[in-house]
Amino acid sequence: MSEISSSFDSPLLRSHIGRALRSARIAQGQTLRQLSREASVSLGYLSEIERGQKEASSELLSAICDALTLSIPNLLLEVSRSMQNQMSITSPRPALAVISLDNTTCATAVNIEDAA
Amino acid sequence: MSEISSSFDSPLLRSHIGRALRSARIAQGQTLRQLSREASVSLGYLSEIERGQKEASSELLSAICDALTLSIPNLLLEVSRSMQNQMSITSPRPALAVISLDNTTCATAVNIEDAA
Repeated sequence: MSEISSSFDSPLLRSHIGRALRSARIAQGQTLRQLSREASVSLGYLSEIERGQKEASSELLSAICDALTLSIPNLLLEVSRSMQNQMSITSPRPALAVISLDNTTCATAVNIEDAA
Repeated sequence: MSEISSSFDSPLLRSHIGRALRSARIAQGQTLRQLSREASVSLGYLSEIERGQKEASSELLSAICDALTLSIPNLLLEVSRSMQNQMSITSPRPALAVISLDNTTCATAVNIEDAA
């Protein structure tokens, strides 16, 4: 399970959770107001959670997920994927500079994978 | 991403996160005290997080994961798996009772999958 972490390179977990919840709500055609009623969360608080401005407690997350008929394990998978994508965008692989022997030209640094 | 939720059937997310963090720490041979120093979290608070008694903010979770050189996406995958396992244990599939035609015998209810 261990791996070099770059968690500080990507937006915080709550931003990714908020985005995933918002996507699920919109995909279901629910308004914030409908979901807030269904999950018994205030409209303002739900909106802040979706925008990644507030942390949702485990209980609140359960209530929101239940109202979205979305399982927490599936939400976590979605969030994991979105964080992983974000990290691979913001943390490119080590670059390889291609330099000619007489040092007159220096190609733009490229990803090792691109050069392979 | 949607699926019938049974999030209330399993322990809260923070319990699963706590357990996963504790497993990662122990797998690395770190003590609570070492990790608390490394992640700049008080010993008591870290212990409560590991036992699922306190929520870790996104910032705190980043700090703990960084100290464990564990990426948050990988932590979420682990937690998703553990919640999914828990849910399949606590929420067995609909049972199928096997009853003979003359009603003299009644087999123990079995899972549909087992009967198939």
